[in-house]
Amino acid sequence: MIDFWFSIGSTYSYLSVMRLADIQAETGIEFRWRPFNVRSIMIEMDNIPFARKPAKAAYMWRDIERRAAMYGMVPKLPAPYPLAELERANRVAVIAAREGWCEAYARESYRRWFELGEPAGSEPNISASIEKAGREPEPILRQADSDAAKADLAVATEQAKALGIFGSPSFLVDGEVFWGDDRLNDAMRWLRQIESGPPD
Amino acid sequence: MIDFWFSIGSTYSYLSVMRLADIQAETGIEFRWRPFNVRSIMIEMDNIPFARKPAKAAYMWRDIERRAAMYGMVPKLPAPYPLAELERANRVAVIAAREGWCEAYARESYRRWFELGEPAGSEPNISASIEKAGREPEPILRQADSDAAKADLAVATEQAKALGIFGSPSFLVDGEVFWGDDRLNDAMRWLRQIESGPPD
Repeated sequence: MIDFWFSIGSTYSYLSVMRLADIQAETGIEFRWRPFNVRSIMIEMDNIPFARKPAKAAYMWRDIERRAAMYGMVPKLPAPYPLAELERANRVAVIAAREGWCEAYARESYRRWFELGEPAGSEPNISASIEKAGREPEPILRQADSDAAKADLAVATEQAKALGIFGSPSFLVDGEVFWGDDRLNDAMRWLRQIESGPPD
Repeated sequence: MIDFWFSIGSTYSYLSVMRLADIQAETGIEFRWRPFNVRSIMIEMDNIPFARKPAKAAYMWRDIERRAAMYGMVPKLPAPYPLAELERANRVAVIAAREGWCEAYARESYRRWFELGEPAGSEPNISASIEKAGREPEPILRQADSDAAKADLAVATEQAKALGIFGSPSFLVDGEVFWGDDRLNDAMRWLRQIESGPPD
């Protein structure tokens, strides 16, 4: 199993969120969805987001576009960025992870954000994504806006930080952090190495 | 052909500098070595180097170690970082690129830096690396310390910036920038796409 640490709001996470179900089906590798708040870690670490660096931001969108094409995805870029309601999107994701509908919710959030231009975490995206995952939006959103849900996201974020995670997406295998959609193959290779055991 | 823009002083560039000769031999793809001063672009862009971010720095060394192992390299990490004489190392590289001995020089600089712990750009690394490339160190170093060599590195750096390059290593194919050792495969795929021409 690979722990998939991610924040809805991270741009490169689009490439992973949209692919993991297929990869799981093809390889049999199970991914555990672990939402956290990457923005609070980045602020703490003084990691300046792409939004404030025009040359890097332009590169990032082009790079995502090329890599998405490689995977057969056709996003409408640039997607709205940064998200105004990143925390709300991820508070819902924490509830969804606990209840087993995180993949469906996160995937629809990203599809609407990157393919329809609807910011994740805000309406109409958030309600539509909860509904797509088979839940009633209204009670979930009420729960997501509670102090308990805010505390749950903060706890998840502290756990991520304690594991050495500072960016989204990150893949955790055997205590090893692999950061970035472009390290997913490295993470899977690591897992296979462990599973095949030490050489005799 | 792929333009390989790099700065001696970049950590991840180790992975590319050490591999390009083999990749060129295997694939027939030619790489043109284009040294520039990534540090001055990073300062200008307010890109904070790894050195000031302990969690990211720890991750970077571990990531380089894992990827190096994947490529069959065994660096002694962490290597001394940052380099005190990054500019000098790259002023020599600009001369070397013009005269056709850049690959041999850069490779030996990195080998000594990452495998023996000798900072690139400083003695004994710099003289040994020039010598390894078949040149007399003393006249090359005199030339590298001239105002003309300083101007040449600044011009190369402006060229890089004008192409949209902001990090090392970067691979340039057909006006497309691919940033990072981990984008070398994407750059090679892009080149093959161009060379195979548009579909009929």
